[in-house]
Amino acid sequence: MKSDAQSGDSAREYKVLGKRPIRHDGADKVTGRAIYGADFQITGLAHGKILRSPHPHAKILSIDTSEAEKLPGVLAVATREDLPDLADKIANLGEGAVNLAHLGRNVLAHEKALYKGHAVAAVAAVDAHTAREALNLIRVEYETLPTVTWVLDAMQEDAPLLHDDVYTDSMGQRGDKPSNVSTHIHFEKGNLEEGFAEAEVVIEREFKTASVHQGYIEPHVSTALWNADGHLTIWTSTQGSFTARQQTAELLQIPVSQVTVVPCEIGGGFGGKIAVYLEPVAALLSKKCGRPVKMTMDRDEVFEGTGPTPGSFVRIKLGAKKDGRLTAGEAWLAYDAGAFPDGMIGAGSMCVFSCYDLPHAIVDGYDVVLNKPKTQAYRAPGATQAAFACESVIDELAEQLNIDPIEFRLKNAAKEGTRRVDGPVYPRVGLIETLEAARSSDHWKSPLEGPHRGRGIASGYWFNIGLKSSAAANVNADGTVTLIEGSTDIGGTRTSVAMQLAETLGISAEEVHPQVGDTDSVGYTDVTGGSRVTFATGLAAYHAGLDILRQMKERAAILWECDAEKVTVEEGTFRADDKAISFQELASRLHETGGPVVGRATVDPAGPTNGFGTHIVDVEVDPDTAKVTILRYTAIQDAGKAIHPSYVEGQMQGGAVQGIGWALNEEYFFDDSGRMQNASFLDYRIPTCLDVPMIDTIIVEVPNPAHPYGVRGVGETPIVPPPAAIANAVYRATGVRMRELPMSPPRLWAEISRHESA
Amino acid sequence: MKSDAQSGDSAREYKVLGKRPIRHDGADKVTGRAIYGADFQITGLAHGKILRSPHPHAKILSIDTSEAEKLPGVLAVATREDLPDLADKIANLGEGAVNLAHLGRNVLAHEKALYKGHAVAAVAAVDAHTAREALNLIRVEYETLPTVTWVLDAMQEDAPLLHDDVYTDSMGQRGDKPSNVSTHIHFEKGNLEEGFAEAEVVIEREFKTASVHQGYIEPHVSTALWNADGHLTIWTSTQGSFTARQQTAELLQIPVSQVTVVPCEIGGGFGGKIAVYLEPVAALLSKKCGRPVKMTMDRDEVFEGTGPTPGSFVRIKLGAKKDGRLTAGEAWLAYDAGAFPDGMIGAGSMCVFSCYDLPHAIVDGYDVVLNKPKTQAYRAPGATQAAFACESVIDELAEQLNIDPIEFRLKNAAKEGTRRVDGPVYPRVGLIETLEAARSSDHWKSPLEGPHRGRGIASGYWFNIGLKSSAAANVNADGTVTLIEGSTDIGGTRTSVAMQLAETLGISAEEVHPQVGDTDSVGYTDVTGGSRVTFATGLAAYHAGLDILRQMKERAAILWECDAEKVTVEEGTFRADDKAISFQELASRLHETGGPVVGRATVDPAGPTNGFGTHIVDVEVDPDTAKVTILRYTAIQDAGKAIHPSYVEGQMQGGAVQGIGWALNEEYFFDDSGRMQNASFLDYRIPTCLDVPMIDTIIVEVPNPAHPYGVRGVGETPIVPPPAAIANAVYRATGVRMRELPMSPPRLWAEISRHESA
Repeated sequence: MKSDAQSGDSAREYKVLGKRPIRHDGADKVTGRAIYGADFQITGLAHGKILRSPHPHAKILSIDTSEAEKLPGVLAVATREDLPDLADKIANLGEGAVNLAHLGRNVLAHEKALYKGHAVAAVAAVDAHTAREALNLIRVEYETLPTVTWVLDAMQEDAPLLHDDVYTDSMGQRGDKPSNVSTHIHFEKGNLEEGFAEAEVVIEREFKTASVHQGYIEPHVSTALWNADGHLTIWTSTQGSFTARQQTAELLQIPVSQVTVVPCEIGGGFGGKIAVYLEPVAALLSKKCGRPVKMTMDRDEVFEGTGPTPGSFVRIKLGAKKDGRLTAGEAWLAYDAGAFPDGMIGAGSMCVFSCYDLPHAIVDGYDVVLNKPKTQAYRAPGATQAAFACESVIDELAEQLNIDPIEFRLKNAAKEGTRRVDGPVYPRVGLIETLEAARSSDHWKSPLEGPHRGRGIASGYWFNIGLKSSAAANVNADGTVTLIEGSTDIGGTRTSVAMQLAETLGISAEEVHPQVGDTDSVGYTDVTGGSRVTFATGLAAYHAGLDILRQMKERAAILWECDAEKVTVEEGTFRADDKAISFQELASRLHETGGPVVGRATVDPAGPTNGFGTHIVDVEVDPDTAKVTILRYTAIQDAGKAIHPSYVEGQMQGGAVQGIGWALNEEYFFDDSGRMQNASFLDYRIPTCLDVPMIDTIIVEVPNPAHPYGVRGVGETPIVPPPAAIANAVYRATGVRMRELPMSPPRLWAEISRHESA
Repeated sequence: MKSDAQSGDSAREYKVLGKRPIRHDGADKVTGRAIYGADFQITGLAHGKILRSPHPHAKILSIDTSEAEKLPGVLAVATREDLPDLADKIANLGEGAVNLAHLGRNVLAHEKALYKGHAVAAVAAVDAHTAREALNLIRVEYETLPTVTWVLDAMQEDAPLLHDDVYTDSMGQRGDKPSNVSTHIHFEKGNLEEGFAEAEVVIEREFKTASVHQGYIEPHVSTALWNADGHLTIWTSTQGSFTARQQTAELLQIPVSQVTVVPCEIGGGFGGKIAVYLEPVAALLSKKCGRPVKMTMDRDEVFEGTGPTPGSFVRIKLGAKKDGRLTAGEAWLAYDAGAFPDGMIGAGSMCVFSCYDLPHAIVDGYDVVLNKPKTQAYRAPGATQAAFACESVIDELAEQLNIDPIEFRLKNAAKEGTRRVDGPVYPRVGLIETLEAARSSDHWKSPLEGPHRGRGIASGYWFNIGLKSSAAANVNADGTVTLIEGSTDIGGTRTSVAMQLAETLGISAEEVHPQVGDTDSVGYTDVTGGSRVTFATGLAAYHAGLDILRQMKERAAILWECDAEKVTVEEGTFRADDKAISFQELASRLHETGGPVVGRATVDPAGPTNGFGTHIVDVEVDPDTAKVTILRYTAIQDAGKAIHPSYVEGQMQGGAVQGIGWALNEEYFFDDSGRMQNASFLDYRIPTCLDVPMIDTIIVEVPNPAHPYGVRGVGETPIVPPPAAIANAVYRATGVRMRELPMSPPRLWAEISRHESA
């Protein structure tokens, strides 16, 4: 421990941080021993399935479950009747207010089905086959309604209205009549008119993106046991056990302490496993039949019944002087929220200009409901759509001004002291360093040759949040330490958190044994999301380590019969006067100096920690098919401090690949009636290893001043630049500026054809 | 919280303590939802069985497992070859030094089989049937040796020797040649000769007891998974997860941190589930076959392969003046340790005179190995045999002196300031109060009438130990608190520990949700044994509560913008100046004042806490069969403070019933060859509800000055008085003083016949 470690210092020598130990859960994962939700077994297990609406928009006139209930093997049926009435209940679920009426209606449709795949009823039976058979016996009487699935259509006056209790909320003022627009956000900085008056070049463009799904490999799966004493235990695949606990408790109107959520290992989440879907339904079924009920989604249910990212429309207007200095920016964003309000427009509006020091700007954002599944977070939620738009216009501006795109960005890059359009002033951030690293990278310096090829670049930003984390750590007699934390481990965070405890204690990463506790065995911890775990839970582990060191100094003082304040500790050795004892040896002597030592900490650090990245991509566009091939890809990012560089690189690579899929192939494809036509991994094309080259990574380390080891968090930023970078590369390969995602072969081919015939 | 709560105070008003809330695990237990070892399931489970020696004493010349390994379905075979060589390794396993060579040889026999049922080899197979079939294919070549099963026989010069490396250790001096006597203990106080010279009456008697088993209903069961990364996880029925972890790690010579022990619910232990049996063997099999291996004992294996309490021989000589004042006592005890040294003689020697203020005394105790299973702790281990002897002689002395047995005991009762023969001086203790409660009880005051009936009384003592415990507690937003502790719950301790946390915090017992953590999720905690959990783990919960209150005062100070030192808390309400906030409301506002609050504490309190009890029993002896019927039974005990009176009463009743079984029926019955003949619950008779009346209880509360709530612990003392009390009652019913246990009909009938023909 370095007691002066109150801020990150890139020059510091670490014993553990920055190394690449084998992850603690590695063997479990590669041998199939790790217990995922689907692996969970318990005596007497019943199996549940969900009946989903075939209609994108319909009144539910009646639900008759009597025939289903009679089917032999059926144990329980649940419908809207079984959920408490939550109308008008707003709950603060840790990360801001959540409208419980909407959350409950998404879990089981009440008055209306609002999208194809909307859950309408559920059955528990002795096996999944019987449950599925019983679904066919449930008679639902629907009155179908007109459908709307495109965000601008839904904003029209005469659009089909989804809700009669949603009004446009604009700057805290509620609109006067129901609307599909639930929120209007407005940010303003400087004087826009003045800014554009100063500009010598102004470019204004419009962009569209389709809904895409997080595409986690593991479908949602939950098992619930409503015990005879009223206690509910849920084993589930979730990004946040405490969040799942709270949502479930609120929906069922029982105290949180009556619910225990045991987080199973998770096969990907990316933001899509924060909201509950199956948990409350499995609980209702279990309460009715007295048995544990397991529910597993099929892939089509994941696509149609869970939350993709918003489809969007974005209009960007930027002005610059001839020397490349941006003078003004205007953004108008409309993001669909899916069937219920509160989508990703807030973050999109805050991020759209976040890379640049704009003296004058206005951002208007609209949250719009329509007949698609309720959108959910997806890795830097809302930022990718905004960056696609902004970074495309930046690229066009640089081209018009004949300035190198990196130089153009460097001239305008956000840095310490820059005030973002939505208000905050940046502390020390690392965008400039990522641009400089890009400029001096082998990739950028290597010429790209050959026809139909082009190189693009784009930057991106994500906040990285703070939020609450808890950690406890127990010292073993053999000098090792067990660590219990509440953050479900998606990207290797058991290890990145354990490493920070190891560094604090002066022991090795292998000497810390991390485990993720359930909601009864660890202090409150917010979701694994917002790139926060290595930052905030790591901070909790650091403080738990300090708590241990403080106690162990007292123990050394007992051994040495000296004042505890005389004992110092550095790199795992305690000293006083001429005496010294290692952490391991002192650990073995705790039993004779007062018993075991347990450290604990809870933290609630302020975010954001501000993650910036810059990506470079080379593409080749097949002149016959317009298929885009990624030739070379380099992701550069400021990690603050890369605790475990392999996992930072993994996040950068994973984010880039998801961004590539979003850019080139992925989309929810709706037919005219508003029904998704490609709800399978065969038809919804996520990139495979055959579709992408190795993603090269360059980690930049500009320590976060708000973390003792400088950590910023890294998970989300890497999905932000890819679509813009690829669009900019495609332009250089084809002369066509693509302003709609995905840049799939038919769409690109049509644009190229139009361009060539123009 | 009462900040001055540094010592118990019987007059204190408690909100939670002394009440009888429903136990937190009640619904799980009565609905069959609780996961016991046998309930544990995991994918790929293999099943193990153990081959046991048919001979009580034999050299193992060879073990040929080749045929067993060839049987289809067999996955692994383990023998002595698979355990690391632990000769001469001594490990400090938390509760004193353990000879690892002996522990290892008990788990799997090495050079010799030392008792019938001694484990010799083990097989893991796809199912238990195949494993059992494979046992028949293992060829073991034995050379049988002479056998000894009675403690005095084993002490003879010419007795068959079990070990060639066991020497009598007497006061730290090792004997000069191998012996079955492993330890000689000697305690001395005053001048014995002088004491007996002062005596006007001297009585000297000899007593024998048979080996008896704890008789827990749940057989031993363990599942082990040796993972590909070398990490070993064990799900097991154990009294101490950390103790099981350490023993297993030491036997396998791997670091403790490489082992995780998950304690399942436990169906009784009483001291018999502290030593490991199956855990290391299941681990070896799992290591060999790469699959999790589950091993379950049958009842005959529990009797023959695990540890009963010692058979014993005790000689007591007591002298008194005519006024009833004891002047001197001499005790000579020989306890069998079973096949390996270190039985219960230490505690037996310390407890034999522990109820009395003897001015002059000598105690000699001998630990003796012989061809029976290694003895283990059984509820107040060693004290019952000693009390049977001492309290019988006390009764005879009182009778000879014509003094009421209660008055006689009161004249000589140990009290604050009394120095025990083995050295310690008692702090405030409650023996006198239990005797006074007995004297004024309805039972004692009601005359017993009718032929063949008699009333007996006896007192008893058990130390009650301290040892190490850890607890952590997390405050939920709904004002409830989750508690994680490391003490496996045998007798309702989840609740008795939770109640102390609730009292400390000023909330209700139901608002605390206790859970028992595994060895990775909670700080080091010693075994559930020694009547220590409610005392020591309760103390840890108390300090964890103080840790929470301290932090919550700081939070209240943030809300009120005042100095934290100004905030006080009493009975769940925080106050400063004219402001007040309840625990629940403050809990809901932690998120806005710095995040979650976690409390933690570790303790290592000094024992003993000194538990005294006095039992009264009325019996009727059938003149034709000599069957003893218990007509009425009252157990009186000083609990210090009865946290949850129902569980204190339950412990008193359970201990009394086990003592009744020991007194009247239970014994290991060996044939001439040294083979147990009654290894089933059909032939080894433990009392059923038809054999005993309702056990009445009187709880005395003399607060333990070393615990903030005065807790002493209650689990073990109640088994100490019953055999002596019953023997004293039988004497009054028949005129026969029984000095051998059990007082079974044949043995009592023979004594009555001898008495009547004399």
